[in-house]
Amino acid sequence: MLHSCNNLQLQTKMGIENGSTLKKKWGFRLNRETNMGADITIRGVRYMLMSKLNKSDTRPVLPLAHGDPSAFACFRTTQVAEDALVDSIRSGNFNGYGPGVGILPARRAVAEYLSQDLPTKLSEDDVFLTVGCAHAIQTILTVLANPNANILLPKPGFPYYEAVAKSCHLEVRHFDLLPEKDWEVDLDAVEALADENTVAMVIINPGNPCGNIFTHQHLEKVAKTAKKLGILVISDEVYDHLAFGKNPFVPMGTFGSITPVITLGSISKRWIVPGWRLGWLAINDPNGILKEHGIIDCIAGHISLSCDPPTFIQGAIPDILGKTKEDFFLKIISIIKDNANSCYEGLADVPGVVCPSKPEGSMFVMAKLDLSVFEDIKDDLDFCLKLAKEESVIILPGITVGLKNWLRITFAIEPSALEDGIKRLKAFCERHSIKA
Amino acid sequence: MLHSCNNLQLQTKMGIENGSTLKKKWGFRLNRETNMGADITIRGVRYMLMSKLNKSDTRPVLPLAHGDPSAFACFRTTQVAEDALVDSIRSGNFNGYGPGVGILPARRAVAEYLSQDLPTKLSEDDVFLTVGCAHAIQTILTVLANPNANILLPKPGFPYYEAVAKSCHLEVRHFDLLPEKDWEVDLDAVEALADENTVAMVIINPGNPCGNIFTHQHLEKVAKTAKKLGILVISDEVYDHLAFGKNPFVPMGTFGSITPVITLGSISKRWIVPGWRLGWLAINDPNGILKEHGIIDCIAGHISLSCDPPTFIQGAIPDILGKTKEDFFLKIISIIKDNANSCYEGLADVPGVVCPSKPEGSMFVMAKLDLSVFEDIKDDLDFCLKLAKEESVIILPGITVGLKNWLRITFAIEPSALEDGIKRLKAFCERHSIKA
Repeated sequence: MLHSCNNLQLQTKMGIENGSTLKKKWGFRLNRETNMGADITIRGVRYMLMSKLNKSDTRPVLPLAHGDPSAFACFRTTQVAEDALVDSIRSGNFNGYGPGVGILPARRAVAEYLSQDLPTKLSEDDVFLTVGCAHAIQTILTVLANPNANILLPKPGFPYYEAVAKSCHLEVRHFDLLPEKDWEVDLDAVEALADENTVAMVIINPGNPCGNIFTHQHLEKVAKTAKKLGILVISDEVYDHLAFGKNPFVPMGTFGSITPVITLGSISKRWIVPGWRLGWLAINDPNGILKEHGIIDCIAGHISLSCDPPTFIQGAIPDILGKTKEDFFLKIISIIKDNANSCYEGLADVPGVVCPSKPEGSMFVMAKLDLSVFEDIKDDLDFCLKLAKEESVIILPGITVGLKNWLRITFAIEPSALEDGIKRLKAFCERHSIKA
Repeated sequence: MLHSCNNLQLQTKMGIENGSTLKKKWGFRLNRETNMGADITIRGVRYMLMSKLNKSDTRPVLPLAHGDPSAFACFRTTQVAEDALVDSIRSGNFNGYGPGVGILPARRAVAEYLSQDLPTKLSEDDVFLTVGCAHAIQTILTVLANPNANILLPKPGFPYYEAVAKSCHLEVRHFDLLPEKDWEVDLDAVEALADENTVAMVIINPGNPCGNIFTHQHLEKVAKTAKKLGILVISDEVYDHLAFGKNPFVPMGTFGSITPVITLGSISKRWIVPGWRLGWLAINDPNGILKEHGIIDCIAGHISLSCDPPTFIQGAIPDILGKTKEDFFLKIISIIKDNANSCYEGLADVPGVVCPSKPEGSMFVMAKLDLSVFEDIKDDLDFCLKLAKEESVIILPGITVGLKNWLRITFAIEPSALEDGIKRLKAFCERHSIKA
């Protein structure tokens, strides 16, 4: 669906056109590898599923595959954030270029925001501003992508990591998250996978796609394992504070004195403004190990060459982070928590779909398909394609996030739409079940 | 000043620490090559010069090295643009993710904006939105950076191209711009440099750093040369319409039927909002050659993996492009033109500094240093360092843009500050001249 950059084909075509491989008519050739990863993004799979919708179905399309509930009225961001942006624009002070690493007041505001939950305070020098969390992922993976290096990624995970790693030639090795242990990291697998070329491991907490929250104890074990292996922990906390179960959200930076931790974050999810594209990369390394190894300078160098978030958004960050009222967060958490519960309970009645654990964070739950229940469903992709076509419900096939024959279901939508979605899902599964 | 990613040094250090090269304490290694280019950006050189300022000088620092006059009151952007942004934010319709290539109304608005000056109308499919023009440069260079490929860049030029090419392993070959011919492209040099691995040539029009405007006739010759060589023309028109001399601004896309042209642009310069980070990459290729060769799909694929401009800025683009009044543009052009003239005339009285031609576009003029005039100036960098220290005037050494012992002088600042700057420059040059 996205594109195909078949270089060999092109060269052949050009050879035929010109009757020679040395002469040429047009000399355009593609850097095929830079694009190889693009077809495995969630965005790409979502678009593909949307293209299969039945246009004659007059019911609303129910999007249960996204991580962006901003279109729903109940998830409108706080006016504090909008006002901060408007004030920044009206000031006229932020129309010009900023430094590549971000403007100082914004870096300081992010450092203070993150420090509230950390044992060691961050300074502005520990924070780099990025164009959303995606840019933070690009930055750290590119900086670490030395020849022969490998990185350990969770399975299931967020396929953007695999896509970026592929485009910068960083080898990927996968460790499992364990559904029977509330999706904890299989640390034995991490130890078995790592070798002298391993540079880092990635965790995503609150969990995407699993909707879990790692315990303080488990995160400490992750840090100790990483230290033993001599690798850093990249902690993707883009869903930070979206925790509503038994475990509180603990930032991985808490354990930065055990092993260096790089935290990736954003205002995208907590403030429900993913389109504002403001993220960060924060260094939790009180022992200065990354600085000593030149990593900090390389991050600064890479960021100075890549994209900047607009200066006026940076200008609004101190107010957005500092002035947002607790009741906004509580309202959002309350809606998401209620949705998570009704989603989990609703799925219990859907034949052929099994949730191993109740979601406690982020916006997602993973549910396993029992294909033996169905008479005509080949796999998860087949399931999701037929569901889109027959019920106008978009759910992400687990294969997209690394788990074949699972589903990733978003519960962060308008509650009535979620209820409707689970109903349609149930009708679909009943209709496709083997009749007794 | 920026950073140094000396990988060998790190490996040695780690080897010593561990007494073995197989075992390791910390496994962080750097992708040195991705950052290699960062130290040759204009931003980096400007920061270095600013660090040399004499802090006890109480006079204002005069910045004649930037391409961003947004900090000066007379260059404040139009309220139409600010209103468009504010309306977009207040609508609440643009808080979510957009498609990687940009939202449709914004792509369509850019297509219409560019089409006003083109013989063949562009469609929305010809336009990709980027995070400023820099991101457009990254995108097209990365897409073309096939192994062994080379690209032809102007000298003098804009060093960001060299930096990006380096980071994606695209070989650079330089053709001269000819000062004695109003900085036209040396097309004989272009033909001599190109071989079967050449993919494209870059022109920057209106000219950065030369302040020239290419004629219709010359651009047509550029297109014909490119066609003969089987390469595409990348036309950097980030200073589009900032023309105030004998030649009108002609977009290179005018000649897209001769050879495929990719135009890079932005609202940064014409609207004086570089910090808003909204740019574009537009395809001028009525014969569909780039599509046929898969380049369009690869651009879309690359863009879908890289950074997006914030959705609400995209949402404001139809109003920014469509509703800005002509009098705003005329006011800006009038200030810049008057400044260009007074700069050129002022420089005529400065010993040791020679302008080969009067600037007619963009925000810059190139002036040659006659080092024989001075008693203690080694080269252009030495000149600019001493000037910063002694006179608090920041001018870019020509070496930064590829011409040793020249200067790139920005005249887009508050008129009184420009006058003051030329005075201090004159005093500096007189003080350092060889006494008779």
